[in-house]
Amino acid sequence: MIRFSICGAASYACGELLRLMVNHPETEVAYLADTFAAGRKIYEEHPALMGFYDQEILPLNEETLEQIVKDSDVVFTAVDAGTVCAIAEKVLAGGKKFIDFGADIRFRDAKTWEKWYGLQHPNHEMTKEAVYCIPEIQRDLAKGKSLIANPGCYPTASTLGLFPVLKENMVVENTIIIDAKSGFTGAGRRPAPNKLISEASNNFCAYSLGGGHRHTPEIEQNIAYITGKDLMQPETWQYINFQPHLTPQVRGIEVTIYATLNQEVTNEELYNLYQKYYQDEYFVHVFPASKPVQTKWTAGTNLCCITPTYDARTKRLVVSSVIDNIGKGAAGQAIQNMNLIFGLDETTGLKIAPMYP
Amino acid sequence: MIRFSICGAASYACGELLRLMVNHPETEVAYLADTFAAGRKIYEEHPALMGFYDQEILPLNEETLEQIVKDSDVVFTAVDAGTVCAIAEKVLAGGKKFIDFGADIRFRDAKTWEKWYGLQHPNHEMTKEAVYCIPEIQRDLAKGKSLIANPGCYPTASTLGLFPVLKENMVVENTIIIDAKSGFTGAGRRPAPNKLISEASNNFCAYSLGGGHRHTPEIEQNIAYITGKDLMQPETWQYINFQPHLTPQVRGIEVTIYATLNQEVTNEELYNLYQKYYQDEYFVHVFPASKPVQTKWTAGTNLCCITPTYDARTKRLVVSSVIDNIGKGAAGQAIQNMNLIFGLDETTGLKIAPMYP
Amino acid sequence: MIRFSICGAASYACGELLRLMVNHPETEVAYLADTFAAGRKIYEEHPALMGFYDQEILPLNEETLEQIVKDSDVVFTAVDAGTVCAIAEKVLAGGKKFIDFGADIRFRDAKTWEKWYGLQHPNHEMTKEAVYCIPEIQRDLAKGKSLIANPGCYPTASTLGLFPVLKENMVVENTIIIDAKSGFTGAGRRPAPNKLISEASNNFCAYSLGGGHRHTPEIEQNIAYITGKDLMQPETWQYINFQPHLTPQVRGIEVTIYATLNQEVTNEELYNLYQKYYQDEYFVHVFPASKPVQTKWTAGTNLCCITPTYDARTKRLVVSSVIDNIGKGAAGQAIQNMNLIFGLDETTGLKIAPMYP
Amino acid sequence: MIRFSICGAASYACGELLRLMVNHPETEVAYLADTFAAGRKIYEEHPALMGFYDQEILPLNEETLEQIVKDSDVVFTAVDAGTVCAIAEKVLAGGKKFIDFGADIRFRDAKTWEKWYGLQHPNHEMTKEAVYCIPEIQRDLAKGKSLIANPGCYPTASTLGLFPVLKENMVVENTIIIDAKSGFTGAGRRPAPNKLISEASNNFCAYSLGGGHRHTPEIEQNIAYITGKDLMQPETWQYINFQPHLTPQVRGIEVTIYATLNQEVTNEELYNLYQKYYQDEYFVHVFPASKPVQTKWTAGTNLCCITPTYDARTKRLVVSSVIDNIGKGAAGQAIQNMNLIFGLDETTGLKIAPMYP
Repeated sequence: MIRFSICGAASYACGELLRLMVNHPETEVAYLADTFAAGRKIYEEHPALMGFYDQEILPLNEETLEQIVKDSDVVFTAVDAGTVCAIAEKVLAGGKKFIDFGADIRFRDAKTWEKWYGLQHPNHEMTKEAVYCIPEIQRDLAKGKSLIANPGCYPTASTLGLFPVLKENMVVENTIIIDAKSGFTGAGRRPAPNKLISEASNNFCAYSLGGGHRHTPEIEQNIAYITGKDLMQPETWQYINFQPHLTPQVRGIEVTIYATLNQEVTNEELYNLYQKYYQDEYFVHVFPASKPVQTKWTAGTNLCCITPTYDARTKRLVVSSVIDNIGKGAAGQAIQNMNLIFGLDETTGLKIAPMYP
Repeated sequence: MIRFSICGAASYACGELLRLMVNHPETEVAYLADTFAAGRKIYEEHPALMGFYDQEILPLNEETLEQIVKDSDVVFTAVDAGTVCAIAEKVLAGGKKFIDFGADIRFRDAKTWEKWYGLQHPNHEMTKEAVYCIPEIQRDLAKGKSLIANPGCYPTASTLGLFPVLKENMVVENTIIIDAKSGFTGAGRRPAPNKLISEASNNFCAYSLGGGHRHTPEIEQNIAYITGKDLMQPETWQYINFQPHLTPQVRGIEVTIYATLNQEVTNEELYNLYQKYYQDEYFVHVFPASKPVQTKWTAGTNLCCITPTYDARTKRLVVSSVIDNIGKGAAGQAIQNMNLIFGLDETTGLKIAPMYP
Repeated sequence: MIRFSICGAASYACGELLRLMVNHPETEVAYLADTFAAGRKIYEEHPALMGFYDQEILPLNEETLEQIVKDSDVVFTAVDAGTVCAIAEKVLAGGKKFIDFGADIRFRDAKTWEKWYGLQHPNHEMTKEAVYCIPEIQRDLAKGKSLIANPGCYPTASTLGLFPVLKENMVVENTIIIDAKSGFTGAGRRPAPNKLISEASNNFCAYSLGGGHRHTPEIEQNIAYITGKDLMQPETWQYINFQPHLTPQVRGIEVTIYATLNQEVTNEELYNLYQKYYQDEYFVHVFPASKPVQTKWTAGTNLCCITPTYDARTKRLVVSSVIDNIGKGAAGQAIQNMNLIFGLDETTGLKIAPMYP
Repeated sequence: MIRFSICGAASYACGELLRLMVNHPETEVAYLADTFAAGRKIYEEHPALMGFYDQEILPLNEETLEQIVKDSDVVFTAVDAGTVCAIAEKVLAGGKKFIDFGADIRFRDAKTWEKWYGLQHPNHEMTKEAVYCIPEIQRDLAKGKSLIANPGCYPTASTLGLFPVLKENMVVENTIIIDAKSGFTGAGRRPAPNKLISEASNNFCAYSLGGGHRHTPEIEQNIAYITGKDLMQPETWQYINFQPHLTPQVRGIEVTIYATLNQEVTNEELYNLYQKYYQDEYFVHVFPASKPVQTKWTAGTNLCCITPTYDARTKRLVVSSVIDNIGKGAAGQAIQNMNLIFGLDETTGLKIAPMYP
């Protein structure tokens, strides 16, 4: 049995991690910790976990962390930006595995992180060792490794939607525009008026309008990785437009990706190309142009569904890619990565069908 | 008093027209007709109109149409594609005014309509006389006219979002991409499984993926109009990507417009430019980049709210524009057009604040 | 013109009051005040009021209150329990009219308020002078008066649903059970996790389970009033079960009222009885048993829709009554009461059709 | 491996059955049949099952039924009222097990069914052999049996909420009122305007107002069973009020049960009583009065959550009981019953945590 602990257990993403772990046959929980909810039972934070877990949430300090490292095989973290490395250092020093939900160790080049997150990075060396891993793109990098940067939600949907055409060098540089829509679990649990059902329902809006969302450079780094650019030289990467929106729903991300192609293709050729890349992937389903994907086809799972199309009038690729933002976009992919680094079948505990309707 | 009649009264758009007319001090209803709901009381189709209207819905035939034309000053139509001109001919012959909610007379060049709607147009001459009118763009064309093509919902939000930068010649040709999201009233009242609350709620998806939505050429015609192209020569127009989506809400359209600009601007300059064009318009509100607009700011009204921004990294304009699809996108604009052609203040009956939350 | 001011302008109910006042031809705003939002523009609190009001929100203190009383004809308050009388005293001393949205002056007997609200009442004499007024039940009491307790949302829907059978002495004592459901605007704007769209949508629950909601004694007082009991002797009133729930929607209250009748009736007789009481009321619509009312038939309006039925097997009345909780349940009824005490037609500014769908 | 087949596979309930079976380690699908969707792939009806099942839906006729019986160990049916027995006869004749989702064999006395369903029952003997089984109430009746009537959704939530107090003889006869609320999956997949997201969202209403819903006698039969009445003598049963409503959500039933008790109790005593009955039940969670249950605590699972309370003022029990209507209310309980009759652990395949948020 793999014993896991969570730092930041009160977040939606970690509630989902616990929910999914109920079905994982090879794991058991060691400790649950959280800065804010310490002292409460885990089911007081996540009432739907009543009957499945009854741990008390530990505070997150030197002492509890020592205990956590000692008694866990793997530690998951969902903590504030800038505070990850201090935890990771101890986990690695204890010889245990570490998977982070945040962005602290997602950029090979810590300076890119510093620029977009407005903080000084505490450990530039660690970012070079950390493995950023969307398994369908780069699973070989992660096998046997201990320090995993679990990808962001928008970057996961976007990168999987772009991978085949980027890999085949079909995309004209600097033409990529990604219009993204997310449910409100992506905005977290901290209450604010704009997230109240009264104001959020029957409402749709953009945010971070005109650029500036922190997932922009993460997607750009992924594009650079796939197209063979040097990840330590961000000045060589191409720029994209990444524009997020909030859709009045709980879960689900849809990204519509636009890019000019350097060759003419048919919808059928695109479908076949994407199938070539993904047909052996358990978690990626490709659909023909006549079947635009729906976020609900992924609800509660680690699935990504993609419909690639081509608009011959404008010579642009138009791809719709959907995931559950706290599934494949967070907890699901974290378990997939855990399975990967522990040598388990990647699908262990994740073969579940989406809740529909 | 202006006596109005409606052909197609059972549609959501015409339910909204009736709802708004309750507050219009200068109109009264003459007849309500509909092919499918004939014989029922109007409040059986639109239960919320109970107590406000108690007309019986007439069938739509030679005889009733004669009666309608005789007793009405203006006739609104929301009927099947291809069936508008036959009604319009009679209304005009009777010396009355005519406002159509559909696309039959929206294209100056009937061949463009034929190409996208897959039907033979019954009256090529009529499309040349009809006035397509978004009042904020082209009100002078409509004054005193009798034959009005009320614009589509997506084209209204898109065109108002593009008008200032197009008029100022700031947009690089063939770079416009419009990512649109609509609530389900835009999909009409005809029941289908994908519109059921069970399947539609908590769900988001694209439709007409990769091009093909019929509002595409309407927006292209509007761009051609603003940039001074010949509307009878569609081969001279630029192509756009127009990609619609369904968002799990009742009302509201948001369009995010991307376009490469031929000059660098600041967000503040853009805001000032849009204000210059719209500050005297009662129904258009412009917001600074820090305030992305929300669909709910327009619910139940004839308002259009716009936030224009510029992404200096990619040199692209990113505009978010929102309307109520059955308000400014249909019934509200139809009343605004009616006010215009009858010489009333355009805002008559339309000075209502959005229902929020 | 009636000049009105609001204390507590940042609440949902007062946002709705301002929204409705846009259409009121006989009023104009004097001042808007709020303890928490002072210094902000009103459209920063209620973004949908952009373009309709641009007042700065005043703090609520001695000085501003003096100014408000001086320059207003009527003052509306939506403030914390226990703080109403201090404001009311000044308004009345200034010879102006006063309408309160809260419960401070709703109980003739201040001790009943003290028992349920757990506070000491600051002015027992004032509650005896104040007029609690659902116009359809007791409009004559309010004509020409200056101190109005605007009824609560649940009590309005419940009392209108019970009025005819109570007035006709058809209800067996102590058999009334009211199962109520409210949208989330009823829970206010203060953010809390359970009101977030992520947790509230697709969810339904009871609250204050098993008794204890503060609207219980208000409904009991209304029953006592209609059945001719002494409002100063609450020990003579009958008890009811009032059980509220939260339904995943923005606006709308539905109450299902159960009561044993002391005589057998048919659905048709009940319909006719309710029509007898309400047919001349502009804001109350009665429907036959085959047409259960829907909350959306009242959205954004001052309407109350009622379907009364009888279950012959159990000899119980079953009534469904719906309102918009911030319309007839708050702002709409407040305007109706304002019209009443100023001698205007009660429907002034309120003849609007519900937003449907 | 248990080989199962489904007649009526295109329904929501059977989509959920298939979804849950993905996680059941002891079953495999034999055939999927449906009168209406024959010839389509199962994932065309239930798109979220893409990648999990690829069977073609068979028509439902003599020939296919023979094949189904031959190759299946158990057959589930979700078919039109009145058509169940013809299928059941063949399944039983083939020596296989049979579980029905509908009401045809739920009433011991077929005449009760005839009265409420308005049809002639085709097989009065079969209803006497069939076992109606909510396992927590009557599992011993079902062990080893072959003909199972899977209970209705409302009756399951209601009966589990009443069981302890009925069993303890604490309820005064003829005082039970059940106010029920259901999400729209309970209303099925057949499209109708009132189920469209445009009309159903932000809306709440009663239906079958004043009595008449077919689940009424099913709950009355359950009460009769628990209190030891003769199920063949419905004239000896007590009457209840059962009043259903539609809440604007996808899944979830909440019932609020009111009943006069023949003794005074405290909330704590009630909690302890319910715990005594349910603490060993995996699928039933009891909560104290301060924690009203929420439908979302059961989403996608076979759980039932219950908060029992007592209102000392009115001497009435007030219980809130929640389930997922297509989980414990249909597919989940059907699997639980299948596990039971095949001698498996009842929880096999059903130990899953609810999707929250």
